[in-house]
Amino acid sequence: VNVLIVHAHNEPQSFNAALKDLATVELQAQGHTVQISDLYAMNWNPVASAADFGQRTRPDYLVYALEQRHGHANGTLAADILGELDKLGWADLVIFNFPLYGGTRFYDKGGLKGKRAMMTLTLGGQPHMLQAGGVHDALDDMLRPLLRGTLGYVGLTVLPPFAAYHVPYIAPEERTAMLEDYRVRLRSLDDVQPLHFPSLDQFDDKLYPR
Amino acid sequence: VNVLIVHAHNEPQSFNAALKDLATVELQAQGHTVQISDLYAMNWNPVASAADFGQRTRPDYLVYALEQRHGHANGTLAADILGELDKLGWADLVIFNFPLYGGTRFYDKGGLKGKRAMMTLTLGGQPHMLQAGGVHDALDDMLRPLLRGTLGYVGLTVLPPFAAYHVPYIAPEERTAMLEDYRVRLRSLDDVQPLHFPSLDQFDDKLYPR
Repeated sequence: VNVLIVHAHNEPQSFNAALKDLATVELQAQGHTVQISDLYAMNWNPVASAADFGQRTRPDYLVYALEQRHGHANGTLAADILGELDKLGWADLVIFNFPLYGGTRFYDKGGLKGKRAMMTLTLGGQPHMLQAGGVHDALDDMLRPLLRGTLGYVGLTVLPPFAAYHVPYIAPEERTAMLEDYRVRLRSLDDVQPLHFPSLDQFDDKLYPR
Repeated sequence: VNVLIVHAHNEPQSFNAALKDLATVELQAQGHTVQISDLYAMNWNPVASAADFGQRTRPDYLVYALEQRHGHANGTLAADILGELDKLGWADLVIFNFPLYGGTRFYDKGGLKGKRAMMTLTLGGQPHMLQAGGVHDALDDMLRPLLRGTLGYVGLTVLPPFAAYHVPYIAPEERTAMLEDYRVRLRSLDDVQPLHFPSLDQFDDKLYPR
């Protein structure tokens, strides 16, 4: 079958790169065809911006998802994106090969302990799609690597996210009402119960539960 | 108090930007001081690379986390990073203001249905830290926006991740053994049970559970 390996590591001599090399050799030996997208070597630009579209339906106002559909239908996406889409279309199996960086001081031993953080986000989906039992399950679980794995990790006290749902599809009055809800939230930040993360006191010095 | 708003949206006229503007005005009216990091306007570079370090302990081999510590201790991090660290140090509250993009075809109606994907990752942490009840809880939950929110979302059949733990701290023989484990995984991809995601058949056309 056709295998695409998407490799993202900033050190070509790393063990992570050795995993990519092993997969290449092993899968070729099994008779598969392998292509590699080495994102650092390609100087891949991960920022989703207006530069991704050669021609736009609305040059005055960028709705990224809309321009993606238009650009895909008309083949006017940026060349680097078209190239990767071609590889994805070709591939039967995609392997994503990358590191997770860590640290030694986290949660209530994190460097930003004592500060607070909140995520404010807009999304196209509706509340019933992002709650327990919904099609994507709870929003906080989907945001977990940010809420816990990033903000909580570095010691921040994390307030529940403020989410503005269904934004591209609603009437201006509804958006105005959302701004008002946000104002209320901003006036009651001290009353909001932060998310709960473990304390390192619950774990021994090798991070096994006590 | 001091509030830093980290804003990331590619359309300055968006509702998302209106939330950022409202927070600025409202928090200033409450007597707080507000700084804004408008990442798109700053042309912020999100790629973690060797360019982030003005001076390195190991110029021949990049260990990102190690150079972060060294660069932070010696003030030799790149100027854009130092600038944001200064703002973080100043802030009592950090608000992250950004969109989540979505789509209309996902999971078993996704555009890449019929293809498979697998994540292969290296990390500094150990297995007991990334399992249920461990300090970071289960790895698959931490990776959820990728496993489910990205790969499963676009219709891919997602195999369980292959994780190489504790990589920077182990002996070469252990790394060799990991490569061998990976080879075994690569030879048995067809036998691995994929992760389970919802079928859209379980939901009606408004995405309420049937």
